[in-house]
Amino acid sequence: MEAKKPLRIGMIGYGFMGRTHSNAYSQVNHFFDLEYKPVLKAVCARNAEKVQAFADQWGYESIETDWRKVIARDDIDAIDICTPNNLHKEIAIAAAQAGKMILCEKPLAMNTAEGEEMCEAVEKAGVANTVWYNYRRVPAVTMAKQLIERGLLGKIFHYRAQFLQDWTINADVPQGGAATWRLDAEAAGSGVTGDLLAHCIDTAIWLNGKLDSVSAMTETFVKERTHALTGLKQAVSIDDAATVMGRFSNGSLALFESTRYARGHKALYTFEINGENASIAWDLHDLHRLKFYDYRDEGPLRGWKSIHVSDGDHPYMKSWWVPGLQIGYEHTFIHQVADFLKDLETGTPTGPTFRDSLETQKVCDAILASAKDGTWKHI
Amino acid sequence: MEAKKPLRIGMIGYGFMGRTHSNAYSQVNHFFDLEYKPVLKAVCARNAEKVQAFADQWGYESIETDWRKVIARDDIDAIDICTPNNLHKEIAIAAAQAGKMILCEKPLAMNTAEGEEMCEAVEKAGVANTVWYNYRRVPAVTMAKQLIERGLLGKIFHYRAQFLQDWTINADVPQGGAATWRLDAEAAGSGVTGDLLAHCIDTAIWLNGKLDSVSAMTETFVKERTHALTGLKQAVSIDDAATVMGRFSNGSLALFESTRYARGHKALYTFEINGENASIAWDLHDLHRLKFYDYRDEGPLRGWKSIHVSDGDHPYMKSWWVPGLQIGYEHTFIHQVADFLKDLETGTPTGPTFRDSLETQKVCDAILASAKDGTWKHI
Amino acid sequence: MEAKKPLRIGMIGYGFMGRTHSNAYSQVNHFFDLEYKPVLKAVCARNAEKVQAFADQWGYESIETDWRKVIARDDIDAIDICTPNNLHKEIAIAAAQAGKMILCEKPLAMNTAEGEEMCEAVEKAGVANTVWYNYRRVPAVTMAKQLIERGLLGKIFHYRAQFLQDWTINADVPQGGAATWRLDAEAAGSGVTGDLLAHCIDTAIWLNGKLDSVSAMTETFVKERTHALTGLKQAVSIDDAATVMGRFSNGSLALFESTRYARGHKALYTFEINGENASIAWDLHDLHRLKFYDYRDEGPLRGWKSIHVSDGDHPYMKSWWVPGLQIGYEHTFIHQVADFLKDLETGTPTGPTFRDSLETQKVCDAILASAKDGTWKHI
Amino acid sequence: MEAKKPLRIGMIGYGFMGRTHSNAYSQVNHFFDLEYKPVLKAVCARNAEKVQAFADQWGYESIETDWRKVIARDDIDAIDICTPNNLHKEIAIAAAQAGKMILCEKPLAMNTAEGEEMCEAVEKAGVANTVWYNYRRVPAVTMAKQLIERGLLGKIFHYRAQFLQDWTINADVPQGGAATWRLDAEAAGSGVTGDLLAHCIDTAIWLNGKLDSVSAMTETFVKERTHALTGLKQAVSIDDAATVMGRFSNGSLALFESTRYARGHKALYTFEINGENASIAWDLHDLHRLKFYDYRDEGPLRGWKSIHVSDGDHPYMKSWWVPGLQIGYEHTFIHQVADFLKDLETGTPTGPTFRDSLETQKVCDAILASAKDGTWKHI
Repeated sequence: MEAKKPLRIGMIGYGFMGRTHSNAYSQVNHFFDLEYKPVLKAVCARNAEKVQAFADQWGYESIETDWRKVIARDDIDAIDICTPNNLHKEIAIAAAQAGKMILCEKPLAMNTAEGEEMCEAVEKAGVANTVWYNYRRVPAVTMAKQLIERGLLGKIFHYRAQFLQDWTINADVPQGGAATWRLDAEAAGSGVTGDLLAHCIDTAIWLNGKLDSVSAMTETFVKERTHALTGLKQAVSIDDAATVMGRFSNGSLALFESTRYARGHKALYTFEINGENASIAWDLHDLHRLKFYDYRDEGPLRGWKSIHVSDGDHPYMKSWWVPGLQIGYEHTFIHQVADFLKDLETGTPTGPTFRDSLETQKVCDAILASAKDGTWKHI
Repeated sequence: MEAKKPLRIGMIGYGFMGRTHSNAYSQVNHFFDLEYKPVLKAVCARNAEKVQAFADQWGYESIETDWRKVIARDDIDAIDICTPNNLHKEIAIAAAQAGKMILCEKPLAMNTAEGEEMCEAVEKAGVANTVWYNYRRVPAVTMAKQLIERGLLGKIFHYRAQFLQDWTINADVPQGGAATWRLDAEAAGSGVTGDLLAHCIDTAIWLNGKLDSVSAMTETFVKERTHALTGLKQAVSIDDAATVMGRFSNGSLALFESTRYARGHKALYTFEINGENASIAWDLHDLHRLKFYDYRDEGPLRGWKSIHVSDGDHPYMKSWWVPGLQIGYEHTFIHQVADFLKDLETGTPTGPTFRDSLETQKVCDAILASAKDGTWKHI
Repeated sequence: MEAKKPLRIGMIGYGFMGRTHSNAYSQVNHFFDLEYKPVLKAVCARNAEKVQAFADQWGYESIETDWRKVIARDDIDAIDICTPNNLHKEIAIAAAQAGKMILCEKPLAMNTAEGEEMCEAVEKAGVANTVWYNYRRVPAVTMAKQLIERGLLGKIFHYRAQFLQDWTINADVPQGGAATWRLDAEAAGSGVTGDLLAHCIDTAIWLNGKLDSVSAMTETFVKERTHALTGLKQAVSIDDAATVMGRFSNGSLALFESTRYARGHKALYTFEINGENASIAWDLHDLHRLKFYDYRDEGPLRGWKSIHVSDGDHPYMKSWWVPGLQIGYEHTFIHQVADFLKDLETGTPTGPTFRDSLETQKVCDAILASAKDGTWKHI
Repeated sequence: MEAKKPLRIGMIGYGFMGRTHSNAYSQVNHFFDLEYKPVLKAVCARNAEKVQAFADQWGYESIETDWRKVIARDDIDAIDICTPNNLHKEIAIAAAQAGKMILCEKPLAMNTAEGEEMCEAVEKAGVANTVWYNYRRVPAVTMAKQLIERGLLGKIFHYRAQFLQDWTINADVPQGGAATWRLDAEAAGSGVTGDLLAHCIDTAIWLNGKLDSVSAMTETFVKERTHALTGLKQAVSIDDAATVMGRFSNGSLALFESTRYARGHKALYTFEINGENASIAWDLHDLHRLKFYDYRDEGPLRGWKSIHVSDGDHPYMKSWWVPGLQIGYEHTFIHQVADFLKDLETGTPTGPTFRDSLETQKVCDAILASAKDGTWKHI
């Protein structure tokens, strides 16, 4: 067997997303036939002991405690950014300048201005870049994209999506720190808008094209929380919930909602698209099922079909098991790495690129601005 | 407007089924365009006071306390039998001999021998006759029949059905008497076999043809119950649960189950039919939904469709509301009366006739016999 | 048996809603034990032949072709208004002035100003009045009300509802005339806002209290339609779709959507309420099922429960059949009549009264105004 | 970090199950904290080129083409048997005699007699042994076990399970050879009984205890198929479908069905257990969802709960992601390896052992025997 070409990874940050990415690098060649093979060169974080334990568990060859050193290393081809959002820009720009490829966690940046700088940096450097909006690569979601591209839906009237959680209802959940930085606007940039809604927006733009305008409402239900590190009560700086109306360039209406106060929903990311000829619906809690309604079916036989997207002729599924047997959340990251490696063979950009994700950033910024002053915002 | 032709009804018995039938007679002309119109002439039961209250509530013109008098009346065209099963034969034969049409509650009789006598009586008398196996006329069930008749399923491999309840788990539920005669084999003939399984068998034969052979297992979980009238503890004489394997004449396999010990199920009558080209499934708890899987759909788009059978081009639904708006249990009886009246216009038998229902009786008898000795029975 | 007290009905209009109301009057005493009994005195419409056919089918004693005559009749106690919306005000005020009780189809009026006049008229006259927002009386919806009143949900964070249909996607559907007056703003006042969203708003206010402010977006997808009577192409005057964000007085966020362009949905009225301790969801296509999530369940056993609201201890269900057996759309009207008659016994108002429904009207007006200028509206 | 203790694996066979097992060994230490770590020492198959490619893909250190050599190697601790069923016995006995631990694919053997020999061999050798009945370790299935052990269901009345597929409906599917040996009784021992029903039986015995007696029916719908290697038409020797009634020692009734002719079902393994106080249901197509009905809930609030078994307090899930995020089919094998390694630390047997699986084998044999002569069989 011919040896694989190595893609030497340096990962910065090692939290929840560090695990999903490391798993993706470990697994991709077991299931996909590719020229390239990721090599786990280094993982970096400030706490040497903890990052060493992580490196041992996942098989990283070395650790670093200063991210600049990772970027400076000659034996690394690609930088994987899994830090809190407020570090994305600085790391990404430095990595680009060092000529490294970049795989950056979402959202791209703290805001559009930062994102624009990052885009310019990677484009100037000409380095491969992608943002981990992983849900595009749930097989059923990718299949939705294919059905839309085949024109099966016809003119689109409605696109609605929601991302509902309930884990912050308890007012005793702290904010800030390593585990709950997503509740701290200084680290995260925003609350549910950047964390959850950004996924909805990324998928929406991918599936349904540009969003032209939005009007939004946000709310912070719990006004004060204890900071995880200082133990002090502080005003909560993030949006707990966000509701958005909007209009797409193709004339369809948008409706988005995200919240961490929807009792009973753990990570319920759903979308539904209503077209002239057909409709599609999906939800993350039953991720293998694509709901499909086709008006071209014979009248009395029309109905919503629940397609169990697990066959060899469904996206990505030929690489896994046999029809009916499921894959899970982590596989979306494996798919993104598989696509990234495949695209390296041909020099193709792997969506969403930084530039693609900047569009999502713009929508998120418009949402937050609209929620502040109650007016519609053009994007 | 031309006057309707009257169909003068004499109903014997007035319990739960008396209500469903009386409602059907009251409602049918509000929703169906028919030459005939039922007229509620008389209702009969032993307790004059109670039957008078019933007559008042439903608008019966008169009451009787002796069923033979109802049959003897000249102003009555059709006898509706809603008594416990052990009276079906005697009443039906007398009614037939008096030249009355008969609408008889299911099951037809206590056993095949009784049923055979009843068939002979109505056939000799040449009177219209039908048995209230009402579930045939759930719109989704009727639609299943249509899809099968169109040949959409192809060769059938499997037919499975179940009727699950849980109301007798409590050992304090009494047996016998007016409310619980269904737990007394002397009044009911059998337990779940005649009460619940009979529905499954009737539908199965209608949809999938003759059953050739069965092997069955029954169980009585609660061995003793207090009699509702005497207050005495007595051995339970009925089957609490019945499981049946079988073979249809068309080569498909049968699987039936009914029980009153399936905690969590109120009246869950379900069936599923697997054919070479398509499959169908239905359940009574969501009676408007027909599940349909069509192998001829394009490969990646195959899936189980949930058809909300509530459109104008679905069976019976044009007579009701608009798409998406539901009807319920009682409407199956209205549909049977509508069909019976329509068939009177043309002299067509209304299925299931006594003769059709005798076939179900034979299967039920074979089930009980097989459960006794553990061997297969030919039918 | 004691004779029932008659409630003599004069119905004005006889279309789709005329059937649902007439059925309710016919059926209510078959299933509910009440002092009063509706008597179908007169039905009124301009076309004598058609209204006579309707009267024959439903058993009305007489017809009228001028609604003022119905109101003038001494032998009529209550006026039922089923006309297009643009006639509600005039008829209601005249009826109130004549001292008649009024049962008025929804929405109450063409706009808030009209509705205010109507409220004043009935309150001045002191006549019983109610508006047919029938969905309150789906047993599962009434049960939701009970659970909220028991405090099971705790503080409410989110209320979202949608009413989705797809029957006007075809640009060949005409507007105006008897069958499609709902597409004509002159007859209907608005499009989906008054027709569909009004149901969502009525239920929302009933379940979750006052709405303080809204921001809305509407769209007319098909810009021109042929008029059903004139055959002329005309600009479409109604809203085809409406999306609404809002805030309730109790601090919860509102999200409403209605459209007739959601391919695959016939009459999908859904709502979901997320509280601190529990959440509730319901949809009209499976109207017997109430989804309930209770955070107080033991941790690993938490989940969304699908309650089949068909037991004797569920609202209204004791009057119908046995557990597991369904009722349908028309029964909501029967329940409203049953409540109206019961309330007559005690002189209690039957919600929603005109005054209750005026609040819904105000919200609808605010929605339409917000959609016009893109700003938030206080109610 | 302390070094892990190696468990050196020699795998015999490398087909579909070779992938699931290899993946389990690769992944287990990424997610579970264990003293032991599998080392992929050798993989063995007759075709050197193909097995080398497999070894390269999964990182096996060496290959063998004679399974006796794998067993003879000193550097191997455990033998993993993934061959067709007709080789299980010989390999397992040799491995036991060589003092190797054994992880054997299911079903244990071709029949009870073989299985008995295998049990005696491993018990005599005192080697750790387990059979890959992987579905026990779907988190929702393991949770079902916990709920039953806590006594939440009370007395059990019914246990029913089915395993439905549709991939052999096409008569052009060949039999025999590497890909379709499961259709050849010489390699597989039986058809759906050993392949699919065996899973149902294993889970049933685990959850509900011993099966005392069965009565079964089998069918071979397609009578002749082309052999994959010889190209010759031959009589089909396996059972295409099997239906089973039975009785458990605890007094509950059993109902099992498996088929490869249920159009529309890919790998629909379902079970439902009805107890006095609660019921449980599960299906493999939505493997994260455990349906649970608890009669002790307040009356009007009773219903089937859909528990999304994906929280940290659900079995195995703490090792994976966060609530709401799914895992898939392959994880059941990872869990079995995790348990096997954990049990090595304490010397505990890992169920199902060979002895446990022999019980399943006995039931399968009884099923096939009953299907032949149509009589009940005691087990």
